[in-house]
Amino acid sequence: MPEHLSHSKRFGTAQYDHFFADAMAQIHAEQRYRVFADLERMAGDFPRALWHGPSGSQEVVIWCSNDYLGMGQHPSVIAAMTEAAKRLGTGAGGTRNISGTTHPLLELEIELADLHHKEAALVFTSGYVSNQTGISTIGKLVPDCVILSDALNHNSIIEGIRQSGCRRIFRHNDHRHLEELLRTVGQVRPKLIVFESLYSMDGDIAPIRRICDLAEYYGAMTYLDEVHAVGMYGPRGGGIAERDRVMHRIDVIEGTLAKAFGCLGGYIAGTATLIDAVRSHAPGFIFTTALPPPICAAATAAIRHLKVSHSERCAHQDRVQRVKAELNWARLPVMASGSHIVPLRVGDPAKCKAASDMLLEAHRIYIQPINYPTVARGTERLRITPSPCHDDIMISQLVAALSEVWDELELPRESAA
Amino acid sequence: MPEHLSHSKRFGTAQYDHFFADAMAQIHAEQRYRVFADLERMAGDFPRALWHGPSGSQEVVIWCSNDYLGMGQHPSVIAAMTEAAKRLGTGAGGTRNISGTTHPLLELEIELADLHHKEAALVFTSGYVSNQTGISTIGKLVPDCVILSDALNHNSIIEGIRQSGCRRIFRHNDHRHLEELLRTVGQVRPKLIVFESLYSMDGDIAPIRRICDLAEYYGAMTYLDEVHAVGMYGPRGGGIAERDRVMHRIDVIEGTLAKAFGCLGGYIAGTATLIDAVRSHAPGFIFTTALPPPICAAATAAIRHLKVSHSERCAHQDRVQRVKAELNWARLPVMASGSHIVPLRVGDPAKCKAASDMLLEAHRIYIQPINYPTVARGTERLRITPSPCHDDIMISQLVAALSEVWDELELPRESAA
Repeated sequence: MPEHLSHSKRFGTAQYDHFFADAMAQIHAEQRYRVFADLERMAGDFPRALWHGPSGSQEVVIWCSNDYLGMGQHPSVIAAMTEAAKRLGTGAGGTRNISGTTHPLLELEIELADLHHKEAALVFTSGYVSNQTGISTIGKLVPDCVILSDALNHNSIIEGIRQSGCRRIFRHNDHRHLEELLRTVGQVRPKLIVFESLYSMDGDIAPIRRICDLAEYYGAMTYLDEVHAVGMYGPRGGGIAERDRVMHRIDVIEGTLAKAFGCLGGYIAGTATLIDAVRSHAPGFIFTTALPPPICAAATAAIRHLKVSHSERCAHQDRVQRVKAELNWARLPVMASGSHIVPLRVGDPAKCKAASDMLLEAHRIYIQPINYPTVARGTERLRITPSPCHDDIMISQLVAALSEVWDELELPRESAA
Repeated sequence: MPEHLSHSKRFGTAQYDHFFADAMAQIHAEQRYRVFADLERMAGDFPRALWHGPSGSQEVVIWCSNDYLGMGQHPSVIAAMTEAAKRLGTGAGGTRNISGTTHPLLELEIELADLHHKEAALVFTSGYVSNQTGISTIGKLVPDCVILSDALNHNSIIEGIRQSGCRRIFRHNDHRHLEELLRTVGQVRPKLIVFESLYSMDGDIAPIRRICDLAEYYGAMTYLDEVHAVGMYGPRGGGIAERDRVMHRIDVIEGTLAKAFGCLGGYIAGTATLIDAVRSHAPGFIFTTALPPPICAAATAAIRHLKVSHSERCAHQDRVQRVKAELNWARLPVMASGSHIVPLRVGDPAKCKAASDMLLEAHRIYIQPINYPTVARGTERLRITPSPCHDDIMISQLVAALSEVWDELELPRESAA
């Protein structure tokens, strides 16, 4: 029994608080206590935001947002939200079954099914919930199913798989290892391969075509998380699978409305039968209030815009290439990435936090340190996400500030690429 | 192996679809296939809404919304949402840790802590997620914790408890049974009692004071779900615990922004240490995009309004009493309820669905049938939720329509109370 309980055999609130304090002491000891920056984004002026810091408010430039294309400030997206709020009100008022299915939500689901050329789509309150309740439900509906999961899959996928029984982990993006496992399971037993198209912390991309080949040969279903790709890749923003022309070979595509589409919520798309079954069985879908009409309307506006507009995607990739090039010229340790994610290796939680603090306080640049448990210990990093709204001057200021911080903290200069 | 797989040893998409079709066939056979009504709420005119049915659109009156006070259409709530959307944009753009903590979200958390007179509060993307990740995290942080859970607790609580180890179920609202279990576990072992103040499908209320007495005597923490009570009970809308003057005796209060506050999201409130620990450990909090600033601003406006305005709560209770009285006069089987929930027993899934369909199509009244798994089989019901916006004429029309439907379906008339 912990020392602080020795005077009392009966627990009270104060004693319980000691357990929570102990847990926090450990986090502090590991130097991974998280301080959330208090930000006030400035619509129309993104990536600029007001930062409410300890010594007052000041303007900063955000370099780590997942509003990758700045769609959260797009005039037509904001207009869709405000119009829907005025016309329908702020909330859905119920679960999907009990009065919460609003017309804008059904329009959104039609839009998403069309985006991925699937028969149907189903919206959840978040991408996290899509994976958690979606995967666990599919896993339970397919009798004796084995789930094959990439080793670096997101926490929401892991939680979903945990609730649905049998699983095998294959080495990250390693299709040979996946094949070994598939061979072991055999062709007769039902199988689901769950993986991401673009891994958010390293920015590397899955061998989707290879995995589809294996899935077809061994008779497995495929579930692809495209949350860091929808809106940004493919001719209509359908994601990496659309870009690589393999979207039709994926059974279930999961995506988010909260990143490139600038809103909130998640979804899956697949056959009408699968969607109907998940709709009818998934507890995280059934027992929760539906997404508000203004959020649905805004997301639909963003998706529709990005289906036909290429300028955001072009500008996005252009900005990403420029950031990577300037960081490489400055011999800053950019980690290899085939995508719009630009990770800069630090490798130490305290220095990672210090670098972030210095950038914010001295340079008015906001890049959150990425420490354990989001990435493995020893691979702590600054994760930079350029957007179409970051101009050349901002990029030069970013690289100059990072150089200064790197010198001050005596961080290694050689490229990690 | 199912017959439809006999021609092929290898699974393909079509074979997998059979599993989902089989699951749906069972739901159809049990007559509990759910059809979601396609609604378009009319802000300013709630509970009126457009219903997009098979034979076109028509105006209906909603009688089953959980926007209990109509705050989703309150002008100051809509104004807060549209103002925030224009000023900050539509989405948060990141997880709480990575650029997603916006100023309106922090203001909301301060407002919620104040509402419940707790040191701190933490907002989640939904009430479902609050319970699921909140309870499982608390359960894991307290070593060797036993969770004592009411038998009728919501699915989100059950899912949270499932992930956190040892549990004991006490009979619904039965403090004697709870005490038996507490005595068995003993005073030395850490314990968490999880219960709801107001159970949404029956409308009955927990013996909170009794449970607090037991918790204090046996040294247990208390976690109270107030989602169907916040905003509606207590002098400032703090819930049933505030009304009963026991709010200070509850360790963790969980609530929603999606019902009486008319928006989306959930929260917990408690000591600063507990909140910091959940903030730092809960996967469903850490790995998901933060609530959008417009949602936070709207929720804050609703909470602030209901802290000082009593007229909505008074009108709400007045409407509830009138509906109950008129239904009783008409000898319709109102189930006993000490709250604003008015369940009308049907006891058969097919007739429950038929009653709902007749109300909608012939009387333009929308009340979703409540069937298994939301309630136990044999207790299927129509769940009526009067709001301050339902006027006397609407109430008379409701009772007349129900009487007609009851006759047509030959449903029993005697009161179930």
